[in-house]
Amino acid sequence: MNILQIINTKKSGKALTKEQIDFWINGVMSGEIEDYQSSALLMAICLVGFNEDETYNLTQAIINSGTVVDLSEFYDLSVDKHSSGGVGDSTTFVVAPIFAALGFKCAKASGRGLGHTGGTLDKLESIPGFNINLDKDQFKKQIEKIGLAVISQSKDMCPADKRLYTLRDVTETVDNVGLIASSIMSKKLASGVKNIVLDVKCGRGAFMKDLNAAKQLAKEMVKIGKRANKNVVAIVTNMDYPLDEFIGNSLEVYGALNVLTGTKNNLHEVALTLAAELLKSMGIKDAYQKCEEVIDNGKALEKFKEMISAQGGDITCLDKEHLLHSNYVLDVIANKSGYVTDIEPMGIAGAVTMLGGGRLKKTDSIDLYCGVELKVQIGSAVEKGDVIAKIYSKDVNNAAILKTFESIKIEDDIPPKPQMILAIEN
Amino acid sequence: MNILQIINTKKSGKALTKEQIDFWINGVMSGEIEDYQSSALLMAICLVGFNEDETYNLTQAIINSGTVVDLSEFYDLSVDKHSSGGVGDSTTFVVAPIFAALGFKCAKASGRGLGHTGGTLDKLESIPGFNINLDKDQFKKQIEKIGLAVISQSKDMCPADKRLYTLRDVTETVDNVGLIASSIMSKKLASGVKNIVLDVKCGRGAFMKDLNAAKQLAKEMVKIGKRANKNVVAIVTNMDYPLDEFIGNSLEVYGALNVLTGTKNNLHEVALTLAAELLKSMGIKDAYQKCEEVIDNGKALEKFKEMISAQGGDITCLDKEHLLHSNYVLDVIANKSGYVTDIEPMGIAGAVTMLGGGRLKKTDSIDLYCGVELKVQIGSAVEKGDVIAKIYSKDVNNAAILKTFESIKIEDDIPPKPQMILAIEN
Repeated sequence: MNILQIINTKKSGKALTKEQIDFWINGVMSGEIEDYQSSALLMAICLVGFNEDETYNLTQAIINSGTVVDLSEFYDLSVDKHSSGGVGDSTTFVVAPIFAALGFKCAKASGRGLGHTGGTLDKLESIPGFNINLDKDQFKKQIEKIGLAVISQSKDMCPADKRLYTLRDVTETVDNVGLIASSIMSKKLASGVKNIVLDVKCGRGAFMKDLNAAKQLAKEMVKIGKRANKNVVAIVTNMDYPLDEFIGNSLEVYGALNVLTGTKNNLHEVALTLAAELLKSMGIKDAYQKCEEVIDNGKALEKFKEMISAQGGDITCLDKEHLLHSNYVLDVIANKSGYVTDIEPMGIAGAVTMLGGGRLKKTDSIDLYCGVELKVQIGSAVEKGDVIAKIYSKDVNNAAILKTFESIKIEDDIPPKPQMILAIEN
Repeated sequence: MNILQIINTKKSGKALTKEQIDFWINGVMSGEIEDYQSSALLMAICLVGFNEDETYNLTQAIINSGTVVDLSEFYDLSVDKHSSGGVGDSTTFVVAPIFAALGFKCAKASGRGLGHTGGTLDKLESIPGFNINLDKDQFKKQIEKIGLAVISQSKDMCPADKRLYTLRDVTETVDNVGLIASSIMSKKLASGVKNIVLDVKCGRGAFMKDLNAAKQLAKEMVKIGKRANKNVVAIVTNMDYPLDEFIGNSLEVYGALNVLTGTKNNLHEVALTLAAELLKSMGIKDAYQKCEEVIDNGKALEKFKEMISAQGGDITCLDKEHLLHSNYVLDVIANKSGYVTDIEPMGIAGAVTMLGGGRLKKTDSIDLYCGVELKVQIGSAVEKGDVIAKIYSKDVNNAAILKTFESIKIEDDIPPKPQMILAIEN
């Protein structure tokens, strides 16, 4: 077997065997297979396609390139939630505390933000003192005690995924469903969790713009999970608009706290659905009601705070004064009256990046306390002169104001309310 | 414009513009575009295809990556012949002298052998003293005076082709007609010659195994040539069997000398057709007859010798004693009686490589005086015990004997005579 034969197999339209996929990933890890060979194969995969077996075998090969977390002590209770990435997506900070408040064990390994999507670790680090680097024992002990821990993804987990993803990113070979599914699922399966809910974002602010493609990705990931004996639910949710009113690192923690203290908005709807649908699939009765309860009685908020404390974070800083504390708060003003008919998520994300809150390259440092607060939603009635958004910034940034202004469309007719939950696959 | 957009254009099935192709090739040359990006694009080209404009624009971009030879002093008389590579293909040594003997100016830049195909430069260097490195002035003066010179391809000509070919070779992206056509034609067009005959080999010993693919390649190359205002003829010839009885570097010079001194065999037929068809396309009357004449009257042989002398080669070494002078001559014996129904070219080429006469890597050094002499052709009647081939070798090489023996098939029924000329495109 050699890499040329493997490339040729895929190029000529045939499926790769498990042995061929293992040979490839082993060669990627050992350095014997060159990047230019992998990128040719990746392009052939994008154009020819990957079947169910190939996707599963690639997932397994990526898992085998690194270490797997052992959560056997509380395997049946273990839960995790994954989002494919969007704008104003702070669901983790609502969903994970709900799980913990209901007695489940939420062991989350997260990443940093890149491009237009935010990163859970960056957001948490806006809380003074928060430590994302727990060792294995600390991590397990905290999960056992509190039911919740969020740490940085280990470099030893799925190292092949990191290499492949870096290459796909610079060779236009990202958008294949099989490659996306195996990249996401390898990390989820290696994390050792049994019950997984996948939030597949769909729309202009997501990687998947097309509903059918998003549904297909959801289906593929559920299949991989089931084949690996996991309980997996995938929910396709609307990412045509920013999910929450707060976009930016510390701002998203603040937005999540609003939901944990009773605000009912799109973030609440999506987070509740993610949590409840996973619990339903685990056989929990009245799942939606139970999730609402732990918000209403403050138990979810309590778990969030417990976790923050346990990881060194200062829970006296979870207020407006600390989380929305930038030098300047600049108003974005409506220049006409009417109804808000569009809030373009890439424009809002672009404004946050302009403010210094997003990374273009992995090595960029970011301002954790800048961002955009939307004062309107789709369908909001506004008068000319109203404040439609606020910009939190360390200096006066007219470009970010303009970008935000241009992203919010005001028209005469009231638009239909967007549907947030687009499909559920399990 | 950036390389990701260019890769995406091709990946999504669209044609690349001239500007996009220029951007790519310039980036390849400057190093700004990485190999892994070019290989992804090359794979997309292989799977999506390249249209006529793209092929032409790539050809031009490759030409523009280097220098172009100026042969304007004798442009209308300038001729060249190119072979896509085969086994026992010594046509250059017959065709080029014919051209020179008829008053045309044959300015040939050649390469070395790699894989199963021999290289003109290696073959010529088997003549003691032969110098393949003439400077520009020496080259032109020799062409003016003798009408014929064969030198090493300049490194300054089409450097982008070298980079792309090296990459294609290790990423399974060789076999696209547009890429092959632009690679060949860029070098031919940069060589400054007006009249070009292309020998597109087809069959088991050639890169093109399939007649339709070979015809398509021939057509593409003729189109590129005409669009660049060149006179181009492409001839698809049979490479299902070794072309000549002599295979190996010095042996192929010997085989060509046989034809130049009157032997009528397959090499003679193919060489005559290549030469005469180009002359016909130039408006020369009775072209076949004129080519035969300069062989019969010895003028072509004389030109070959003149060229060798002018480039420092010892013309007293053009005999059996010098060109077939290895330590051992080993017989390959028929183990049954019948008719020769097959001579597998890759097997014979493999035997020559085993003897040390072929390169697996560009940096391999080779034995110029080893090889295989076939004592039979397709259809030859043989008796058990007959010598069907001779191995010229510096030591006793049983593996090469066996390989040669296994490549020659003897059966009961006389096979049809192979057709040598499969198609003519102009």
